[in-house]
This record gives sequence, structure tokens and C-alpha cells, in this order.
Amino acid sequence: MILITHALTGDSHCTGYYSDDDENPGWWEPLIGPGKAFDTNKYFIICSNCLGGCQGTTGPASIDPETGKPYALSFPVITIRDMVNTQRTLLDHLGIDKLLAVSGGSMGGMNVLEWAVSYPEKVRSIIPISTCGRLSPQGIAFSEVERQAIISDPNWNGGNYYDSDLPANGLAIARMIGHITYLSSESMLKKFGRRTRKDDEVSRFGKRFEIESYLHYQGDKFVSRFDANSYIYLTKAMDFYDVAENCESFDEGAAQIKSKALFISFRSDWLFSPRETAELVDAMRKTGREIDYHEIESEYGHDAFLVEYPKYSYLISRFLERVSRYYNS
Amino acid sequence: MILITHALTGDSHCTGYYSDDDENPGWWEPLIGPGKAFDTNKYFIICSNCLGGCQGTTGPASIDPETGKPYALSFPVITIRDMVNTQRTLLDHLGIDKLLAVSGGSMGGMNVLEWAVSYPEKVRSIIPISTCGRLSPQGIAFSEVERQAIISDPNWNGGNYYDSDLPANGLAIARMIGHITYLSSESMLKKFGRRTRKDDEVSRFGKRFEIESYLHYQGDKFVSRFDANSYIYLTKAMDFYDVAENCESFDEGAAQIKSKALFISFRSDWLFSPRETAELVDAMRKTGREIDYHEIESEYGHDAFLVEYPKYSYLISRFLERVSRYYNS
Repeated sequence: MILITHALTGDSHCTGYYSDDDENPGWWEPLIGPGKAFDTNKYFIICSNCLGGCQGTTGPASIDPETGKPYALSFPVITIRDMVNTQRTLLDHLGIDKLLAVSGGSMGGMNVLEWAVSYPEKVRSIIPISTCGRLSPQGIAFSEVERQAIISDPNWNGGNYYDSDLPANGLAIARMIGHITYLSSESMLKKFGRRTRKDDEVSRFGKRFEIESYLHYQGDKFVSRFDANSYIYLTKAMDFYDVAENCESFDEGAAQIKSKALFISFRSDWLFSPRETAELVDAMRKTGREIDYHEIESEYGHDAFLVEYPKYSYLISRFLERVSRYYNS
Repeated sequence: MILITHALTGDSHCTGYYSDDDENPGWWEPLIGPGKAFDTNKYFIICSNCLGGCQGTTGPASIDPETGKPYALSFPVITIRDMVNTQRTLLDHLGIDKLLAVSGGSMGGMNVLEWAVSYPEKVRSIIPISTCGRLSPQGIAFSEVERQAIISDPNWNGGNYYDSDLPANGLAIARMIGHITYLSSESMLKKFGRRTRKDDEVSRFGKRFEIESYLHYQGDKFVSRFDANSYIYLTKAMDFYDVAENCESFDEGAAQIKSKALFISFRSDWLFSPRETAELVDAMRKTGREIDYHEIESEYGHDAFLVEYPKYSYLISRFLERVSRYYNS
């Protein structure tokens, strides 16, 4: 049994098509399926929507049974540990006691780490990808301007917008900023360069460079599928996550993780940079343990974990085989 | 005679105190004065407010004599070349025909390059700092989300806010994003780490990390001194600036610069990165010319050109001495 944990704006739909209406398969389709890295011929895979999100599990947009209205900001502040405890409750309900592995990228990777910290006896191995034990101040800074863009939208209305116009402008800007941090300067240069679009020259300050059109497209598309309050709650959970919370030192926090571990980061990722991943891996190695850590060459920035499958899927299958053999022998 | 050109939110006040009310001296105080790099015992220094700004030279906030109201968005779209031509008009008015040097950082550096392109016969040397021949798509992306934050503020009102409430929230967010791009991940980590401020824990989503408080402080402070429409016009001018505009290639654009040149960049600057500066320097070197180029070790990011004076001021004084000797001999 393997648990997959999703990123900030992801959901439980991690692979395959659920219905004929699906335009795209799940977000980790190339990794999960028969014969793939997370081989469904060998392992059961489970993935749930995270607490605080807006895709199914309870979040600020859910109806508060006491009032019959959405929780909005009366939804309690949540942490990565709360997300993990919700997953734990689900597994208990399903009668699953042990996980061969927990894996996910970005915020999903924080979930992975917290599983190993909170429930070491249940987790035989972890595969945290493009993640870190605590977000950098630069990452927090981006989170905060994203939240400010949402909060400053007059439609946000203190979080009470469910019966009226959505804070669409603010949420779109937050997503645009997010996308800048998901790409790298190199990948933007290769993909968009300084090319401009002639058909956009309608207004004096209209879109013009292709990179601008791309960001607007991503921002606009996001608004219809994501809840602004969830964005605030989840980014706060990421900002505050610290693998060493309540520990004397970061090393002590890292030493709590006893599971076998395969860490993967990507060179051009500057939101969850290899430096941040290495900080945690180095701290774990101080306990004398062997940790698999691969920093992969890529120009795709943070998005690499959703792009560079041929460069890292074999690492996962090999690692899982090794872990399976160890526990079956 | 040396012309100093200022950055996006700078102004003509480049050194010294103008009045007893000045809290701070000019923005390049450590570089300009008697015995300093730009040695006022040896050279006359001139610095003017840039066209389109809001510190003195005409901009969107200026009164249109035809209507008696601020230009707002009826102000024409301006370019870096227009800024240079305004400076040129000022120098003509003052009877100054030749400049020993033009120097400035960031957007000021783009002004410097454009001086060499537009008026090669008037510019004996250039000292472009923390700048490039054309902004990266990542730089354009940040400009665009900054502008969107302003434009989405309902008080912006299509640029007509001079008689009512200012688009303060939007402008503050733009500034906050700007400040993230002026610092580096390393400098944020050293300066703020993940430290939190207890006194800020008043609201559920209030400021909490020190980096957040810093950005809010910078955003709020900016609103009282800068015009939102100027921010839009000037960032657009930067985005569109291309030293090779109307040329067949970037190399051809670079080859237009004939003046002696001292380029300076800073290693951790990721808004105007050394890679961007080197792109231009390399293209200029293809013409067989000697170009002074120094990439300076620093953790201060783009802000380094306003911080790391001991690391680069001597380069400027030596360069200016050499240029002066050359033209006096």
C-alpha cells in the first residue's frame, strides 16, 4: 500500500481518467499505473484530497453544519500535521495499518515528511520530492504577496464571497505569481523568450509579451477551479511547516525521521531548491543513516517534478523494489 | 561632466542632503562627493528625474495644460530612449556638449546603454551597473504581476485616482513583489531567517514572519511617495527596452555601443543577473573591443548596487581616472 500526497493546488485525482469528460488524466499519470514507477500491478495506491482544500475533503468552502453556510474564515487554522492526521483517519477507516511508502512533491512532500515524523511505526519508506523540511523566507515572502493579492480584492470581503462575486482578480494574480515561482528563468527564456503577440496590442497596457499571455491564461483558468480561502489556508500551512517544530534544533527534527528515504530535487527549482532539500538530507545523514538523495539536472524549475518523469521514475521503481524485498525477506 | 541616471523608483536626489528635513541623503551618497568614486573635486555631476516618473519631470501625475487635469493614462507611452532624449534636452539647455561618463544602475543602467547607442559622439564612457541590454522574460513576468496588482485595485479606476483614494493596496503589493526581486534568497535567510514577531499575532492571517513584516513595511512606505501610474509607465519602458531594437541581431545592437565601458554586476542578482549583463558584454567583445566587466561576489541580490560600495567604488574611480587621462592626453 502506497499513499500519494498532492501539492498545493492538486487533488486526489493522481492518475488515469475518471470519466469521459476528463480533459486530462491525473496529475502524476506518467508515474502511477501498470508497469509504471508506482506499479499498480504490484502495489495498491491511495490518494486523498487534503484537509483545507476545495476538492472534496473539508475546507473553508465546506458547509458548516451548525450554520448551514460555508465556514469561510471560521474554518480553523490547519497545519501539515492536521492534513496527515486526516489521511491517517482515512487509512484507519479502510483498515490499513502499514504503508510501504508515502510519496508526493512540494506541499505533498511536506505531508510525506510529516508522516515519517508523526507515525514512524506505520511508514516503511518515504519518497519526498521537490520539497524541504521548512520553507525558505523567500518562499514565505511569495506566499504572503499571493495572499495579499487575494485579501486586497474587494470581492474577497473578509472571506465571505460564496454567495456573491468571487475574488477572481486577486486569486488570478496569486496564481500568476505562483507560476513565476514554478518555472525557472532558463525555462521561461527557452519557452517564451521576449516574443510578443501582435493580436494582444489592443489596449495601451494590454498583454503583449508571450510570457504575460501565459501567466494571464494560467491565472484566469485557475479561478474557476480553486477556492481563494483554501489558497490562504494551505499556503499558511506550508509557511509554518517545520519538520523540527518543538525540537531543540533542526538536526533533532531531522533525526525523528527513521523510515528509509529517497529524496529527489531538481537543480533549477528555486522555490524548493536543492539547497533546502540538502539541508534536511545532510541533517538526517548526521545520524549515520544512509539516505538516497538525487539532485537531478533540469531546467524546468519547481515544475520539474511534474515534467521530468524519464529522469526520475526509474529511481522510484528501484527504490520501491528494494524496500519491498527488505520487508518481504 | 558626468551624468547619473536613476533606477525605477529613484530620483534626481543622488547624493547629499538638500534640506534639514531630509531623513536620508541621496541614494548614491557613498559614491558621489569629494574624494568619492564620482569625485566632485574633479568632476561635475548632474542627475535629473526621469521622464514618466513622479519626482519632478513630466509624468502621468503632471497637469495636462490642455485640460487642467493630470494626464493619467492620456500620458503617452514612453521608452528608455525618450528618457535619454529628455536628459539630452536638459544638457543642451545647460550648454553641455560632451559627457565624460554616464552611469546608473538597474533602469538607470538601461538609460546609460541607450545614451551610448543614441549619442555615441557625446558619451566618452559608460558605467552600466546591475543592468542588461534587454530584460529577461522572468523580469517581464514580475513587472506584469506588479502592474496587475495596481490595475486590479478598484481605486485605480482606469488611472483616474488623483482626486480620490489612491490605489494604495495595489501599489503596496507591487512594491512588495519588487522587494522580493531586489533581495536574494540568501540575504533573506541571513537577514530574516524564519523568525516570527509575536506582537503581530493579532489576526488569524496577520503578519507573522519577519520577512512578511519587512515587505509590508516597504509596501506601505512606498505608497506615500510614488505614483501608481508612473510605476506602470516606467516598468513598461523597462520591459520593452532592447539595446538591439531595429537591429538584425543582438550582436548588431551591442556593436552600436562605441564608448569605453565599465560593466558591473553582482553574483546573487537574479533580476538583472550576471548572465544578462554578460550576454551584452560578450556581444560587445565580439567586435574585438576591450570591455571592463566585473562580476562581484555579493549576497545582496539586485540591491547590491545600493549596498556593496566598498566592493566596487574603487573600480569606478580607477576607470574614470583612466578615461580622463586618455581624453586629456
